[in-house]
Amino acid sequence: MVAGARAVARGWSEPHGLLTETPMFEGADLPALRGLVFGGHDIRRGCIFDAAREIYEQTGTIPYPMLRQLAPDLRKVTAELRRGTLLNAGRTITRLADRAPAAKSVRAEVRRLERDIRAFTKRHKLTQCVCVNLTSTEPQLRLGPAHRDLARLEEAIDRDAVRSVRPSLLYAYVAAKLGHPFIHFTPSNAALVPAVRQSFDDSGVPYMGSDGKTGETLVKSSLAPMFKYRNLRVLSWQGYNMLGDRDGVVLADADNKRAKVESKDALLAGILGYPLHTHVGIDYVPSLNDLKTAWDFIHFQGFLGVKMSMQFTWQGCDAILAAPIVLDLIRLAALAQRRGETGSLRHLSCFFKRPLDVDQHDLHQQWHLLADYAQRARQG
Amino acid sequence: MVAGARAVARGWSEPHGLLTETPMFEGADLPALRGLVFGGHDIRRGCIFDAAREIYEQTGTIPYPMLRQLAPDLRKVTAELRRGTLLNAGRTITRLADRAPAAKSVRAEVRRLERDIRAFTKRHKLTQCVCVNLTSTEPQLRLGPAHRDLARLEEAIDRDAVRSVRPSLLYAYVAAKLGHPFIHFTPSNAALVPAVRQSFDDSGVPYMGSDGKTGETLVKSSLAPMFKYRNLRVLSWQGYNMLGDRDGVVLADADNKRAKVESKDALLAGILGYPLHTHVGIDYVPSLNDLKTAWDFIHFQGFLGVKMSMQFTWQGCDAILAAPIVLDLIRLAALAQRRGETGSLRHLSCFFKRPLDVDQHDLHQQWHLLADYAQRARQG
Amino acid sequence: MVAGARAVARGWSEPHGLLTETPMFEGADLPALRGLVFGGHDIRRGCIFDAAREIYEQTGTIPYPMLRQLAPDLRKVTAELRRGTLLNAGRTITRLADRAPAAKSVRAEVRRLERDIRAFTKRHKLTQCVCVNLTSTEPQLRLGPAHRDLARLEEAIDRDAVRSVRPSLLYAYVAAKLGHPFIHFTPSNAALVPAVRQSFDDSGVPYMGSDGKTGETLVKSSLAPMFKYRNLRVLSWQGYNMLGDRDGVVLADADNKRAKVESKDALLAGILGYPLHTHVGIDYVPSLNDLKTAWDFIHFQGFLGVKMSMQFTWQGCDAILAAPIVLDLIRLAALAQRRGETGSLRHLSCFFKRPLDVDQHDLHQQWHLLADYAQRARQG
Amino acid sequence: MVAGARAVARGWSEPHGLLTETPMFEGADLPALRGLVFGGHDIRRGCIFDAAREIYEQTGTIPYPMLRQLAPDLRKVTAELRRGTLLNAGRTITRLADRAPAAKSVRAEVRRLERDIRAFTKRHKLTQCVCVNLTSTEPQLRLGPAHRDLARLEEAIDRDAVRSVRPSLLYAYVAAKLGHPFIHFTPSNAALVPAVRQSFDDSGVPYMGSDGKTGETLVKSSLAPMFKYRNLRVLSWQGYNMLGDRDGVVLADADNKRAKVESKDALLAGILGYPLHTHVGIDYVPSLNDLKTAWDFIHFQGFLGVKMSMQFTWQGCDAILAAPIVLDLIRLAALAQRRGETGSLRHLSCFFKRPLDVDQHDLHQQWHLLADYAQRARQG
Repeated sequence: MVAGARAVARGWSEPHGLLTETPMFEGADLPALRGLVFGGHDIRRGCIFDAAREIYEQTGTIPYPMLRQLAPDLRKVTAELRRGTLLNAGRTITRLADRAPAAKSVRAEVRRLERDIRAFTKRHKLTQCVCVNLTSTEPQLRLGPAHRDLARLEEAIDRDAVRSVRPSLLYAYVAAKLGHPFIHFTPSNAALVPAVRQSFDDSGVPYMGSDGKTGETLVKSSLAPMFKYRNLRVLSWQGYNMLGDRDGVVLADADNKRAKVESKDALLAGILGYPLHTHVGIDYVPSLNDLKTAWDFIHFQGFLGVKMSMQFTWQGCDAILAAPIVLDLIRLAALAQRRGETGSLRHLSCFFKRPLDVDQHDLHQQWHLLADYAQRARQG
Repeated sequence: MVAGARAVARGWSEPHGLLTETPMFEGADLPALRGLVFGGHDIRRGCIFDAAREIYEQTGTIPYPMLRQLAPDLRKVTAELRRGTLLNAGRTITRLADRAPAAKSVRAEVRRLERDIRAFTKRHKLTQCVCVNLTSTEPQLRLGPAHRDLARLEEAIDRDAVRSVRPSLLYAYVAAKLGHPFIHFTPSNAALVPAVRQSFDDSGVPYMGSDGKTGETLVKSSLAPMFKYRNLRVLSWQGYNMLGDRDGVVLADADNKRAKVESKDALLAGILGYPLHTHVGIDYVPSLNDLKTAWDFIHFQGFLGVKMSMQFTWQGCDAILAAPIVLDLIRLAALAQRRGETGSLRHLSCFFKRPLDVDQHDLHQQWHLLADYAQRARQG
Repeated sequence: MVAGARAVARGWSEPHGLLTETPMFEGADLPALRGLVFGGHDIRRGCIFDAAREIYEQTGTIPYPMLRQLAPDLRKVTAELRRGTLLNAGRTITRLADRAPAAKSVRAEVRRLERDIRAFTKRHKLTQCVCVNLTSTEPQLRLGPAHRDLARLEEAIDRDAVRSVRPSLLYAYVAAKLGHPFIHFTPSNAALVPAVRQSFDDSGVPYMGSDGKTGETLVKSSLAPMFKYRNLRVLSWQGYNMLGDRDGVVLADADNKRAKVESKDALLAGILGYPLHTHVGIDYVPSLNDLKTAWDFIHFQGFLGVKMSMQFTWQGCDAILAAPIVLDLIRLAALAQRRGETGSLRHLSCFFKRPLDVDQHDLHQQWHLLADYAQRARQG
Repeated sequence: MVAGARAVARGWSEPHGLLTETPMFEGADLPALRGLVFGGHDIRRGCIFDAAREIYEQTGTIPYPMLRQLAPDLRKVTAELRRGTLLNAGRTITRLADRAPAAKSVRAEVRRLERDIRAFTKRHKLTQCVCVNLTSTEPQLRLGPAHRDLARLEEAIDRDAVRSVRPSLLYAYVAAKLGHPFIHFTPSNAALVPAVRQSFDDSGVPYMGSDGKTGETLVKSSLAPMFKYRNLRVLSWQGYNMLGDRDGVVLADADNKRAKVESKDALLAGILGYPLHTHVGIDYVPSLNDLKTAWDFIHFQGFLGVKMSMQFTWQGCDAILAAPIVLDLIRLAALAQRRGETGSLRHLSCFFKRPLDVDQHDLHQQWHLLADYAQRARQG
């Protein structure tokens, strides 16, 4: 994401994949791409130039000559990275980390994250700061009273109730506290629990989630309405996903996978309006690295009860699909804050597998929400 | 189509595939399915029960026990079939015919078709009659002055200008003359030439076309917007269609195929808004019979110029997909006439590969036109 | 299988799928197809004509008019069916049964099965009788001392050690006892335990197994050698199987599935000669009934380390693929007995996913074993 | 090919794709990979380092850091390239050239090619020189008396009968004259006409062709036998190939394509033993560059006449698949010469779509020819 943002900003690459660079948003009060400053918390050490080079070696998606030109930019961002939190992250994510988890207490950890972000915005004299949760999919958090109400959450943090938090909850909580718009890009259920949403709402800060819709689910939500338009009855929709990067490692853990599968599976019955046989498989195939491959099989019934089928194979590079969406969301969240919008940003539903406060899963209906918004935003 | 209409009307089969049987049109002034009476012109002799049995033997799509129960209904409709016209139909279609073409002159042929339809409506005391053009795809007609203006078309017919007509032109012309709504379900360019449209418009009779959107093109028009929504640049869209029925025989003739390919190919640039590399292949594969199989390959470019791909295989039974659409169109054309609508029925664009007077190829946008119309129609 | 055997014997259908009807076996001393008499043990009640009609209704694979003509033949075979055994069959298979399991003891059950088969061969004055195990995949049997040696197995049966047997063990044991060649067409590990093989070997009766190679695995074993021939390194081979019939119900039970997956998965490393990442998924998709659909994705590496891929979709009707193989195996087992062959019939390895006593999984190598045998058999 | 040969020779890349680097040929008297010296005739100017960089930019198949390390090697080979001949090459190939075609006469051109090769072998003090024809597929040459007999071919060359030659004929003719083994890697019919073969045979020089079997056809020849093994009747086999490199440009010309399609299409009926419906499409899809994508659909009939299907998608990088085969063939041709073999090298049939003097298209049978040969060669 960082490499691409810089490459486009410097004019070294076309802005394919970025909606905020199309005429749709011309004239809207978006922050300029070249003005974005990146920082973050990461549970793994190391330079993001090296990470980008690893991506090049595995999948070739960042052209090598460009990568070398971007090295100074990437090194600069590396200097802005701080140690991420691993508080109750679950064993699989914890195993991925190579930075020692050293939280004295939940409250201390919260303070550390806060301090880091404050220093970052101050150092760069930022007028706005958008926080995006890009952590690996966490095991589902069992929700309790501490998650229903802000006061009780504060209390849980104070009494060091580690089991009641997850990293994504802490990041969201801190963003709300600091008054920064928040984008929840993963399916983890801990980030936007009611208590955290209350905090955002209290301070009038916009947020949206959850789980970026980048590949197979995007296709699903684009294709499923067609069957409805023709009154063709979908009998079964089987989806098989294969991926081989760190996401794949995390999702190979059944606890972490559950949240993801639910997020991917919910939308079909919603679009079609009836229950149907579905399956979402996610398998770890290391040799694929980031080149996610999905195969979907759709069995449907038409006139005279005749059964027919459709199948598709999606071969997309996950990071390449996700990165521009994250950039779009950052800029659109900043725009929303500038426009004084609060609460969940429902017009961004087309970017998410589980759009907050939006029941509509039909991609085309979601698109109209965004298109209408863009028109208003263009007019100021 | 006839077998299915009767099977659904008698309650022997679910109305899958029929939009006019969904809540969407509940309360609209549609003719009842069980009230439809079928007749027609055909260039091939023989009982439609035998034709239906042949379909069973080749693809099994009509369940055999139901077929036997439908025999009396199908024999009754057979008695309503008259000899179709072959005037300037082209060699491939003419070769399919087994009824001797015996036109004395174009005008005599026109009178015969007229007489047949008049007798049919009288015999059954019909209040409305919708004509549907389901002839095989004809070679493209080179348009000239005779097609631009009704008076000159009449004149051409009178001086027996056989080269200026095609069967589909004659059927449309006769429908207009008799004041019957007309549905042009094939890509032949002869049916709705300006002179014929003028005739419909003069008498205030509605019509729509052309080329039913049943399979691969339907998927295309549902999927292409997704790439636009994400600003993913489509580099190439290759489509390969295989089919093995009489349609396949006709489309194996390059003259007839041209019209079809153009109809299938036009929409992508329209939806995406830029020119792109496309290909539409249609091959005759006899063993498939009616079980049309299409494979599409979509090559697209995302962030940082990375190329990715998607492919789909569509395995649909062409007749099973087309039949309910034809029934829907018959009923919706009748509804339009009842509601006093005239001209091209643009709200039916979602059913056609080349919707008349509609530039919008995005299936979802087309759907909204129909949904809005249905809402108005439900309210009377 | 019965319907097809009769249809081909009566000349109503071509012998597609049957290798024993090709010139390959012309002149070999095979029992004639029309001379085969069918009987069996089944855990479900009911007429096999009704079962065949159900197949017609679900998938249309047996043409309806032929089905009606075959009714007398099918009813005759129904009269030969006896109650199957459910001794320690596992909960999922037991749930499928609609005939009351009423075994007094293991030994009593063995005697009943024996009696049934003896009566069958006597009633029809058969000169040979081949037993085929077509039971659903059982949960794996934990093998112990009772399975290593015939005397100890007899002893276990006598002391009613229900946990030490499975239906497929009992059928194989009885076949050996009666001196009938035995074909083990499923992956259940209980059928051909050493003790049972000892019994066959003692009486010089031939047998073979296990798990008929009908679809996706057949393709695998045909395709994998190609990668070896080109020194292309297979990195991952993912296989996803979907099926919806009773087999699917049974394999949805993880206990039963395990045996099947192992049987499908073993062969790749064997053919390629190195360990590789593989996955075999089997999912129950009811709407598919017997029309099994499998998708395989093969990721491989070539010159300069470049990764490439191949994928295939197999859409086969499981019963239609298996039935002729079972008929071939029956006839080839009878031939082997006539030729005085004993022990495992290794020349039949090409028909099995896990061929007994054969390490070779390359389909083409297996084929040569059969072709050489056929040549010898043709010459007497 | 050159980049890969050097990378493997220097130990910078694994020898994936090279059969001559496997234990199969251990101990055979093959020339060492690191000892190979490359030169050639090319119709396009320019450095092969630049060509390799272009490949990197388009498809990323040569890793960039390795490419830079290889630069000196590639520049050295560039210095060995001479102007290729364009005599009667056809318009499409001629259009690709950027070196002025300047042949005074056919004989003069022959002398020039001869001179170049002689100088090359002398300059590097080579003990053996293998010529490989890698020119683009030419339009088919209409064969006449001049091609049947060496004396008449000489005469035609002397009377400057330009229409009777093609570049590939001239290269083969010169190789024969100089006594160099010759590998014909393309489908052009001009290379190994009887007159040229006579020249090779007269001087006892081995040769083989034609048309390297690298991708879709390789899969076909591996898969088709499976249907025979099961007596499954193949009804239709449709193959669609898409490619976007210079090969694609040449094959977009119908004259050039014809030879290729015939080469790809012939083998199925040969393997299966009966005529069947086949189709081979080749389409130019520029965005794919060298990443060839093929889709095949196989329709087949089994027991009880039931139709089933299989489809596969092959996504291979053409150059990456072809390069190691060319290296294998160079080394195996050199080995054959060392072993005193003459005439067509039939044991190399597995590498060709149309193996000279070999009727067998079954990949597995072809493989046995090579495996047997390798065993003999290993033993000296």
